[in-house]
Amino acid sequence: MKISYPSSQKIYVKGKIHDIRVGMRRINLRKPNAAVVVYDTSGAYSDAEVAVDIRKGLPRLRAPWVERRGDTEQLAAFSSAYCRARLADAGLADVRFPLTHLPRRAKAGRCITQMYYARQGVITPEMEYAAIRENQQCDELGIPSHITPELVRSEVAAGRAVIPANVNHPEAEPMVIGASFLVKINTNIGSSALSSGVDEEVEKAVWSCKWGGDTLMDLSTGNNIHETREWIVRNTPVPVGTVPIYQALQKVNGEVAELSWEVYRDTLIEQCEQGVDYFTIHAGLLRAHLPLARRRLTGIVSRGGSIIAGWMTQRGEENFFYTRFEEICDILRQYDVAVSLGDGLRPGSIRDANDDAQLAELAVLGQLTQTAWSHNVQVLIEGPGHVPMHKIKANVDEQLRCCHGAPFYTLGPLATDIAPGYDHITSAIGAAQIARYGTAMICYVTPKEHLGLPNKEDVRAGVIAYKIAAHAADLAKGHPVAQVRDDALSKARFDFRWKDQFALSLDPEKALEYYTDGCPDGERDHCTMCGPHFCAMKLTKSMVTNC
Amino acid sequence: MKISYPSSQKIYVKGKIHDIRVGMRRINLRKPNAAVVVYDTSGAYSDAEVAVDIRKGLPRLRAPWVERRGDTEQLAAFSSAYCRARLADAGLADVRFPLTHLPRRAKAGRCITQMYYARQGVITPEMEYAAIRENQQCDELGIPSHITPELVRSEVAAGRAVIPANVNHPEAEPMVIGASFLVKINTNIGSSALSSGVDEEVEKAVWSCKWGGDTLMDLSTGNNIHETREWIVRNTPVPVGTVPIYQALQKVNGEVAELSWEVYRDTLIEQCEQGVDYFTIHAGLLRAHLPLARRRLTGIVSRGGSIIAGWMTQRGEENFFYTRFEEICDILRQYDVAVSLGDGLRPGSIRDANDDAQLAELAVLGQLTQTAWSHNVQVLIEGPGHVPMHKIKANVDEQLRCCHGAPFYTLGPLATDIAPGYDHITSAIGAAQIARYGTAMICYVTPKEHLGLPNKEDVRAGVIAYKIAAHAADLAKGHPVAQVRDDALSKARFDFRWKDQFALSLDPEKALEYYTDGCPDGERDHCTMCGPHFCAMKLTKSMVTNC
Repeated sequence: MKISYPSSQKIYVKGKIHDIRVGMRRINLRKPNAAVVVYDTSGAYSDAEVAVDIRKGLPRLRAPWVERRGDTEQLAAFSSAYCRARLADAGLADVRFPLTHLPRRAKAGRCITQMYYARQGVITPEMEYAAIRENQQCDELGIPSHITPELVRSEVAAGRAVIPANVNHPEAEPMVIGASFLVKINTNIGSSALSSGVDEEVEKAVWSCKWGGDTLMDLSTGNNIHETREWIVRNTPVPVGTVPIYQALQKVNGEVAELSWEVYRDTLIEQCEQGVDYFTIHAGLLRAHLPLARRRLTGIVSRGGSIIAGWMTQRGEENFFYTRFEEICDILRQYDVAVSLGDGLRPGSIRDANDDAQLAELAVLGQLTQTAWSHNVQVLIEGPGHVPMHKIKANVDEQLRCCHGAPFYTLGPLATDIAPGYDHITSAIGAAQIARYGTAMICYVTPKEHLGLPNKEDVRAGVIAYKIAAHAADLAKGHPVAQVRDDALSKARFDFRWKDQFALSLDPEKALEYYTDGCPDGERDHCTMCGPHFCAMKLTKSMVTNC
Repeated sequence: MKISYPSSQKIYVKGKIHDIRVGMRRINLRKPNAAVVVYDTSGAYSDAEVAVDIRKGLPRLRAPWVERRGDTEQLAAFSSAYCRARLADAGLADVRFPLTHLPRRAKAGRCITQMYYARQGVITPEMEYAAIRENQQCDELGIPSHITPELVRSEVAAGRAVIPANVNHPEAEPMVIGASFLVKINTNIGSSALSSGVDEEVEKAVWSCKWGGDTLMDLSTGNNIHETREWIVRNTPVPVGTVPIYQALQKVNGEVAELSWEVYRDTLIEQCEQGVDYFTIHAGLLRAHLPLARRRLTGIVSRGGSIIAGWMTQRGEENFFYTRFEEICDILRQYDVAVSLGDGLRPGSIRDANDDAQLAELAVLGQLTQTAWSHNVQVLIEGPGHVPMHKIKANVDEQLRCCHGAPFYTLGPLATDIAPGYDHITSAIGAAQIARYGTAMICYVTPKEHLGLPNKEDVRAGVIAYKIAAHAADLAKGHPVAQVRDDALSKARFDFRWKDQFALSLDPEKALEYYTDGCPDGERDHCTMCGPHFCAMKLTKSMVTNC
């Protein structure tokens, strides 16, 4: 499984603080136009020199960094009873990832999270790696930029940025999520009871990285979740997130009332030791909020939220994510897994946006943020969902205020509910704006949202729509690297350098397909939209030349 | 050629002031949910009782209204020499529209524009028609709304709204463009030298109306422009616009320096008498602006702008659209053709947005607005193009200030240039925001923008992306009818009324296609995205029922 981009070469930029090599993509343009170096999420798949075998997994880039720190130890066996049972089950041989990497965990009494190091004033290799990825283009062009390894450190220390970097996922390239940095996009994949298996999910994961997905959530709810995830984690060069309650519910055969802290706890440990980098946990949805949700047009539309709401209702008990939150943090900190505090009460319609239910939960997320930080656990805050445009800024402002600046991570939001089949667009409109106002990461939505499971083309459509939204926000926020690429593409168009234009674009294959569809010759000084006699740019050029 | 929508019936709402019947679409939902009445741009094509024959054209709805006013007269022949020559050319029999309607024009000394009537305090049938279309849903539900026939009149009188309604296009249903009303979308079609002919263009025009296009620009630059336009105007139930300089340039064989006021004047009259409702005229681009444009990253990207800039450069003369603007207005007022003041210096890249060139031209458009208004000619102001998000509001504010509140009509804008092949999305992101801040009409962009000529599927993708942007803006602006439809759809989803959900959506066919793709059975209480065990809405419902 390889990835290639036109006119592009894989380059590695050396660190100045640490002995690291940061993979990036250089887009070579027709001389004398300078090459453009862009952020690259495709990992070793786009390195022609590296043979990737998905049965072996990606190179374990961060393994030596983690070992060198000396504050973790390799365990003799997996800690989760469920994990051990799966490994011992001979019937799973066909679906199991062929290699076994024993897990690492913090030594007793040691803190190993990126937040902890940052607070100690330490710039880790992960921090430098993330900074170089963001800023290499500016460095090469000598453009002043605020992004430095020290900025990454200080933002992580303050809780305003997160580097999801489980010690058990050394295959992932470090990246940083925070409002001071480039806007990131998350993609969701995952099998359901109605869909297919392992191969297709790994292929979708790599596909998502090819188009620019920065992180990946595995939302599988089908069979063999444990094994599917192992394949995905070992072969994904970006951080991987999950919603552990999905698997926990599977373990009790879908009976919500049967969920227990013990099953959930074992699931957390199982996934920490596999290498999941961040967990969505709906710990802010309390019993007291349920009456607020009942008044809504569309109730609870978060899957995790509805599961825990159902559990509270049926058991008559408080949300155990909330009551056990300190214990949860104590597990996560031993692997440096970040918590992504889920918004179980995210609005499911325009009518319900920014309502009492949503805001009541948000206030609890703010408290939990401080609890997590007291354990040096990194925190993301999840957000909506559905928000009309005039309520978007208020939403971000309120989140940043309530949650002490923790990075906001939103699903869209959809700016209208009126276009099922086009929710990558309805939500890209909201996502671009919420990112502009300070949301650090936007979770993609595909055209199949609300309707069915996305296939590969849907994943591509969703990723590109979100790369557009993220880049538009970066431009509006004044990130110089964003402007460099935008300008280079505009100039290539004006110069009729079609090849350069497409190489710089988010989806060179689609652009070329549409271009050659009209007229299948090579470079030409007009496009089929206007034809040769009505090309404004051609006319302008002749005018400029004539005077 | 017929249009049908699921669960929908064509209804006609009677006027209270005038004897008019306003065509609308009623979407019937499963009882006890109330039907939703929506704005309908599909004209007689969606009325099962009316047989439309494109060789005869649509019913001439407004003909009796115009005649009754008694201030126009039918001419004995077409005034344009070119038009007469085309009619006399036997070689064109095969491409010519079969019927001939002699043109009407204002009687000597009479004012016949909607602006003139509005300033006299007269509510015309056109104004009442436009008001009913916008507001019927609120009327039926008893929801307070500010939209009334009197508001339409007063906004048209003030120049803040435009009703494009050439007396020679009585087939078009009246509609209003202004910031106080629902956001409208324009679609562009048109053959080029490299594309096909009449049938395909008429089909695209009707197709665009099916999906919700409010107005239609025929940008043809190919052969038989005159005849193609006749077919389009006679068969289009929405206002039709053109850029007359394209045809004028064709008449001088594409030789820019050969363009003259005489050729252009005859072209204006030719098109006024055919029934074009609004003309894009690049009258604000002056010689003094050309040095500003030369400093840009992407120069001049407007076709009309580059033509007139080329003419000025080659002839060493001032823009004749500007020097002859009073004469132009004197022609337009005799047919009630609105002028859409083109932005020949619209930025063609993010770098060039809101620059000196753009703003210098805008100041001239402000002067021309007042000139046109002094002739009672209705005015639209065209806008960009490419604008990063943080400059969008300033752009609208400046336009409204410079141009005295005349309706703004923008092409997108694209919020980034980085995604050729996806410019319906890059621009819908900008369009939704510019519309929210007061732009009255947004001109769609298709996925083929910058790459090639749109086919039918591209037109559909562009229209739906823009209907999304317009509706999102209407929601943000607080238009009650927008909220009604959005809420009805959200509620249908939450109730698992899939049929109702799709009927209410912007593209029922696409939604159904995606839904049945996953699992081809009928109504069910979950979707394939989550499967039956993980459906949040299903879980919520059981929770609400259980407590």
